[in-house]
Amino acid sequence: MEVYLDNSATTAPCKQAIEAMNTALGDNWGNPSSLHRRGICAQALLDDARLTVAKELSCRSEEVYFTSGGTECNNIAVFGTINAQKRRGKRIVTTSVEHSSIEEPVRFLESQGYDVVKLPVDSSGRFSEKDLMRAVTSDTILVSLMLVNNEVGTVQPVNAARRAVNAAGSPAYIHCDAVQAFGKIKIRVSSLDVDILSISSHKIHGPKGVGALYVKKNLFLVPRTYGGLQEKKLRPGTEPMPLIAGFAAAIKALPNPSTVVEQVSRLRDYLCYEMERMGGITINSPPNSLPYIVNISVDGLNSEPMLNYLSDREIYVSSGSACAKGKKSRVLKAMGLSDDRIASALRISLSRMTTFEEIDTFLMVLDEMKGSLKRRR
Amino acid sequence: MEVYLDNSATTAPCKQAIEAMNTALGDNWGNPSSLHRRGICAQALLDDARLTVAKELSCRSEEVYFTSGGTECNNIAVFGTINAQKRRGKRIVTTSVEHSSIEEPVRFLESQGYDVVKLPVDSSGRFSEKDLMRAVTSDTILVSLMLVNNEVGTVQPVNAARRAVNAAGSPAYIHCDAVQAFGKIKIRVSSLDVDILSISSHKIHGPKGVGALYVKKNLFLVPRTYGGLQEKKLRPGTEPMPLIAGFAAAIKALPNPSTVVEQVSRLRDYLCYEMERMGGITINSPPNSLPYIVNISVDGLNSEPMLNYLSDREIYVSSGSACAKGKKSRVLKAMGLSDDRIASALRISLSRMTTFEEIDTFLMVLDEMKGSLKRRR
Repeated sequence: MEVYLDNSATTAPCKQAIEAMNTALGDNWGNPSSLHRRGICAQALLDDARLTVAKELSCRSEEVYFTSGGTECNNIAVFGTINAQKRRGKRIVTTSVEHSSIEEPVRFLESQGYDVVKLPVDSSGRFSEKDLMRAVTSDTILVSLMLVNNEVGTVQPVNAARRAVNAAGSPAYIHCDAVQAFGKIKIRVSSLDVDILSISSHKIHGPKGVGALYVKKNLFLVPRTYGGLQEKKLRPGTEPMPLIAGFAAAIKALPNPSTVVEQVSRLRDYLCYEMERMGGITINSPPNSLPYIVNISVDGLNSEPMLNYLSDREIYVSSGSACAKGKKSRVLKAMGLSDDRIASALRISLSRMTTFEEIDTFLMVLDEMKGSLKRRR
Repeated sequence: MEVYLDNSATTAPCKQAIEAMNTALGDNWGNPSSLHRRGICAQALLDDARLTVAKELSCRSEEVYFTSGGTECNNIAVFGTINAQKRRGKRIVTTSVEHSSIEEPVRFLESQGYDVVKLPVDSSGRFSEKDLMRAVTSDTILVSLMLVNNEVGTVQPVNAARRAVNAAGSPAYIHCDAVQAFGKIKIRVSSLDVDILSISSHKIHGPKGVGALYVKKNLFLVPRTYGGLQEKKLRPGTEPMPLIAGFAAAIKALPNPSTVVEQVSRLRDYLCYEMERMGGITINSPPNSLPYIVNISVDGLNSEPMLNYLSDREIYVSSGSACAKGKKSRVLKAMGLSDDRIASALRISLSRMTTFEEIDTFLMVLDEMKGSLKRRR
């Protein structure tokens, strides 16, 4: 039996998403920009998908822009803001635990002379509101904060950003990378009080290759791509209709987040309890993190041989972000973990499809593995 | 019976593409960046797709980069070149008949102080080699030329670019937008002698939302997007596997281009012959254009009411580029056509799936329409 516990890397597309994609491929395959009936039908599908995203985020349809995924969302948010706010300042405030699609754009901007402040985090992976208040100044033009960390599941106090921006009299746009949060906790853009928000389809059992950006009405972003009139010119190019239809279907198939969080919490609590009982395992995720992600360190073993051992037995976990392909974790480092603990990290990530049976299989093989694999000298 | 003659806007996905996508959605749905077996299987699918594109373009696998489509390809080509060549010059040479995904990036760069030369075209939509030779100077950093025009089907003498660049001692990268040519004429990047080339899936019966960029080995482009390690960091973000698999399957399903060109030529010749016999119709596409695109003007009638009349009868054509959504054609203007002829233009675009029966239905309804629609005053 395959045990897939790498749901923060990607998820299995749900049957509703696959069905919707097949309709968009086999029947309703027009180009939404075409003026004839085939185009109009495709446009109707696109409008419906946009409304689905808007409802889920509690925003308006016209505030939703489809993109090719979380990385493109984050890039449009960062560069779109910087280029729109050029004359207002040079300071960017973000955290030390962002995904590489924020980390790398910001690093590039730092090399171009921008003043980048990365908020430190505590041992639970959380930045403090006090640090945020101090970091945001009147010449800060962008505050970019992730909502749920992709490696440890920590939930950040993102809604503190507005207070910080207002207190500083800053013109900053507030962006939130909600890729790992979307579909798992209820997101209302108005409660989070952010200006821009990134989400992705393939983390919620939709297809890979599509995401959406919320951009508050009347907020101006400079496009990163130039071409046709699609997505109000913020993101031109023929819309990836099969993906957009699949994304919308995956959103419609989402159960009530709070019900699932409860269900996944039971799995997580059981998993953590058994691992603690087993011994030799430290849990790096804080207790109040989102239960979908459990980051652990296994005493004396290295991540890669563990991944291989588990993979050979059809148990799939990761050592951190898939986008980093096995590189040592910046996030765990920022949390102050020792090199030893970082080198022995595993990320176990659950989904609403995960079962107790799978957790049991994982626990059994984990226990075997600890006996079999050679300890580091 | 639906008659779809708007294949330059988008095409119906072929069954091979749909099947391959379903495999990538239902079975092989892993993240290629994951280090476990699910990731490795997805990576194998990705490698196979890359090899398929490479074979079709007669280049190496490592010279192929997947993107979200033609628009993104063209943007990476233009901005990637400009940013890599910043210190070498300020001049960009292109044509007056490019797609908006070249036209708009170049217009933006012009506003930033770049010196943009747009080669004029003759009445057949073709630029002259002489003009190209004259335009390219020693401080030209980019030459971007489309291979087949998307509105009239004109084939451009792209392979003259290397001579022009060499003669001028120019450091320019040569980019070719081959979106409308790919799959219709045999493309060898070495014969075209270009450095960068853009292709798209949904013009060849593959899914919308994916394209590929050929970048000659060791040619340096500055990325437009920053994030993970995917596509050698030129285009980070989780790869849209279902689309990439569908794209590769659509390429594998392509028949020999020369056989199809012959078949489509017969359709085109018949269509043109009958329209000329009908009278009141001017053919704007040159006789030696690629037969897939037939641009016409209908005396005294406006494009939009014609599109609507035809659409109501399930006949789908366009008035020009789908990305321009009905705006007046820059291409026909550059060819020197009168405003009247531009206002009455229709683009009929064929595919290898088009039948004589469909052409007959189109001709019948076109004839009826000419009698029914009110002429302009």
